[in-house]
Amino acid sequence: MTRVAAIIGGGVIGGGWAARFLLNGWNVQVFDPDPEAERKIGEVLDNARRSMPGLSDTALPAEGQLTFHDAIEDAVAGAEWIQESVPERLDLKQKVYAGLQAACREDAIIGSSTSGFKPSELQEVAPRPEQILVTHPFNPVYLMPLVEVVPSDRTAPERVERTKQIMTEIGMYPLHVRKEIDAHIADRFLEAVWREALWLVKDGVATTEEIDESIRMGFGIRWAQMGLFDTYRVAGGEAGMKHFMAQFGPALKWPWTKLMDVPEFNDELVDLIAGQSDAQSGHLDIREMERIRDNNVVAMMRALKAQNWASGAVLNKHDAKLMADAGMVRKAADIADPSQPIVTVARAVPIDWLDYNGHMTESRYLQAFADASDRLMEIIGCDQDYIATGGSFFTAETHIRHIDETHLGARIEVRTRVLMAEGKKMHLWHEMYAGDKLLATGEHILIHVSLETRRPAPFSPEIAANLKMISEAQAGLDAPEGVGRYVGQPR
Amino acid sequence: MTRVAAIIGGGVIGGGWAARFLLNGWNVQVFDPDPEAERKIGEVLDNARRSMPGLSDTALPAEGQLTFHDAIEDAVAGAEWIQESVPERLDLKQKVYAGLQAACREDAIIGSSTSGFKPSELQEVAPRPEQILVTHPFNPVYLMPLVEVVPSDRTAPERVERTKQIMTEIGMYPLHVRKEIDAHIADRFLEAVWREALWLVKDGVATTEEIDESIRMGFGIRWAQMGLFDTYRVAGGEAGMKHFMAQFGPALKWPWTKLMDVPEFNDELVDLIAGQSDAQSGHLDIREMERIRDNNVVAMMRALKAQNWASGAVLNKHDAKLMADAGMVRKAADIADPSQPIVTVARAVPIDWLDYNGHMTESRYLQAFADASDRLMEIIGCDQDYIATGGSFFTAETHIRHIDETHLGARIEVRTRVLMAEGKKMHLWHEMYAGDKLLATGEHILIHVSLETRRPAPFSPEIAANLKMISEAQAGLDAPEGVGRYVGQPR
Repeated sequence: MTRVAAIIGGGVIGGGWAARFLLNGWNVQVFDPDPEAERKIGEVLDNARRSMPGLSDTALPAEGQLTFHDAIEDAVAGAEWIQESVPERLDLKQKVYAGLQAACREDAIIGSSTSGFKPSELQEVAPRPEQILVTHPFNPVYLMPLVEVVPSDRTAPERVERTKQIMTEIGMYPLHVRKEIDAHIADRFLEAVWREALWLVKDGVATTEEIDESIRMGFGIRWAQMGLFDTYRVAGGEAGMKHFMAQFGPALKWPWTKLMDVPEFNDELVDLIAGQSDAQSGHLDIREMERIRDNNVVAMMRALKAQNWASGAVLNKHDAKLMADAGMVRKAADIADPSQPIVTVARAVPIDWLDYNGHMTESRYLQAFADASDRLMEIIGCDQDYIATGGSFFTAETHIRHIDETHLGARIEVRTRVLMAEGKKMHLWHEMYAGDKLLATGEHILIHVSLETRRPAPFSPEIAANLKMISEAQAGLDAPEGVGRYVGQPR
Repeated sequence: MTRVAAIIGGGVIGGGWAARFLLNGWNVQVFDPDPEAERKIGEVLDNARRSMPGLSDTALPAEGQLTFHDAIEDAVAGAEWIQESVPERLDLKQKVYAGLQAACREDAIIGSSTSGFKPSELQEVAPRPEQILVTHPFNPVYLMPLVEVVPSDRTAPERVERTKQIMTEIGMYPLHVRKEIDAHIADRFLEAVWREALWLVKDGVATTEEIDESIRMGFGIRWAQMGLFDTYRVAGGEAGMKHFMAQFGPALKWPWTKLMDVPEFNDELVDLIAGQSDAQSGHLDIREMERIRDNNVVAMMRALKAQNWASGAVLNKHDAKLMADAGMVRKAADIADPSQPIVTVARAVPIDWLDYNGHMTESRYLQAFADASDRLMEIIGCDQDYIATGGSFFTAETHIRHIDETHLGARIEVRTRVLMAEGKKMHLWHEMYAGDKLLATGEHILIHVSLETRRPAPFSPEIAANLKMISEAQAGLDAPEGVGRYVGQPR
């Protein structure tokens, strides 16, 4: 039977919860007196449907049913999970609980999205306090895994376990906060940074933009994968966490922030932290942690590169400079000797191109060949400006032969020939080398299309002329070994 | 002529700088009295050579020459750039500058890696203060783009500009800090979070591990791409930054951190921040920013998924549950009807599979087919346990025909046939569908290999039996349309 979650309070957070449950197959019943609630939740759902299913490498279940209810009693009827995301006023939240507890299942769990209140405060006047705990998510709720699960002494332990299980089932990472405290854990850091940032802006030291750059170009990338302590553990190197703390401990007395209410830095604190850090990551040696960190950082920055954003945009600019410095061909007129294959790709094999066999994975061969085709397109005049006018090439057919393996860091080169170009198509031949070693060949038919009709269309006279020049100049080369073969053809 | 950088002080930071310069083609001259310096820098260089070249989608220049020098005068001779990374003691740094300024080029720039000192302090007793400024990097220096460039009034403006240019040329993001302050900008946030984290550990609220999870499962991912203010701007939604501040402003008075030295929250501060935020990102509407944020977050989390780390590991666990719930076939014995093609992939097209033409990019078709081959391997018994014993399949040949386009979020399915399996090879046929629409076909030869010799080797009897069962059961199907064709073959 389809499971039911009630969402009390829509908006960005409630809508995000609705999306989490719906897209994981739950039915969702919403109560929100805001006349705009349906539109607001609909917008969050649109975002979630666009981004969340592709996080998985397998299909999500069929989406649940979404219903809106005018009475809180109807919204919570039959619900196994009740998520409260009403505004941050304790009296309001307590009133909401009284209302919904009168109508909801006794075995339901009531999770609050509160950023700051302690569960014992939420429970103060509730008829069944054992039902209530904090489940504090992070925006966008449909993507961020973290949910802080904060029970009080009065929350039934069975419900805490069930909460962690349900949160896991909708793809989240429940962090059990064992000791209730204002603002739980993550928001305490957000609040500390917010306070420091307000000082920096107020004092004219930095603008909001400079502050954002100072985060996303540096420690933000590190924190996305290891957090605070593991990052420092690696930075401390072989000397370990105690060494790191000895080095930076004295800074607590210095005006490195305006927030000077610091704990006493003594051996007890050092031992406590170093011991916990050992328990957390002592099973990994520092060299191994460095490799893991570098793998993660490279993979994330390359992901941002494809989005041309933040550190990824910096990398793209640096690539443009490197290509110019290396004299990579970008225009037909710059080809030194058109009678020879054109070097269209020259690069190192990156960390994110490897697979579980420890070598470059097969789809990345096609990525390198596709990059080579893109470069050839640019050279013949089908560059981003041309594409903006509505013409482009789509690949119709590809044949790859894998001749040899290659590994992390290997410097590879793709050399490209235009075997034929007429009407609306071109026939390309790519060879991938590491030094003199042939790694793979790629044979491709690309069709020139109108991006409006998505149908084949003739290419521009400039492209036609450049293709003719190259294919005629290369016509003197021997036919490539392996061209025109079908899969499994005997040699 | 090859440019020269001097590295004064090795270790993790100095070694990272050496790698940045060397791998971007500069010669590097090191001075460090530590007898272990050469080994330590060598270890950092090994890490950098492994990870940094692949950040670029084009080749780095030939690596520069690395030399070690016993005298600081020799290390700085001829250097255009001098990077000082000696221990954080002001008197030591000042002594080092006096020594190296006696020998270095007058037009050289001296950058200090100091985390905390202000440039005016570094310059206090220097013969040529105009040469000195702070260039504060982040570990690992060979990957992190951020470098805080902090001049004082006494630093020559021309050198500040040249500094930003040189930092950009070695692939970094120079953040010009316009007002010198202890700990510059980023380390003020790190220090604030560090202080709050020490309280949480000391007070027994959270362990180091719980704190790291609270960061990397949530806001760390957001900060890696937008930082603090843009993240809040998006969270504030259409109501804008002022609304966000009105909502969270009162928290400054609450004990949401132990760090209570807060600025006064008044209209002036709100206007200052909201105005700067508008200047920073007012050209993007909130819906657009949400899409950018979601694209970045999905791309980064999927990058971490391939590394099976942090939020990526959470996604992998969730996938395993989804596959089990959906009854995806994982073993030959579970195939309901072996006479029909086997569904080996069922998924949505994710954000990171799109290209500039707005559709799924060609290499991701091969990734989906490779995933289908991996699933078939698992089904016939070539799973991770088997691979650990030293046998696997490598793809030898691939033929892809693109029949139709597909787009973000489309639910695709790959259906797989075993056309032939004998000796050491298998011949697979994949068809990719969106609903009833055929998107592409993939024809592949895979060779079973020994992972030790990397040469063809017979597969296990279990694999042979499973392949025989499937290929015989599917033998009754018609030959697939398009099999055995070469690229460009007329229909």
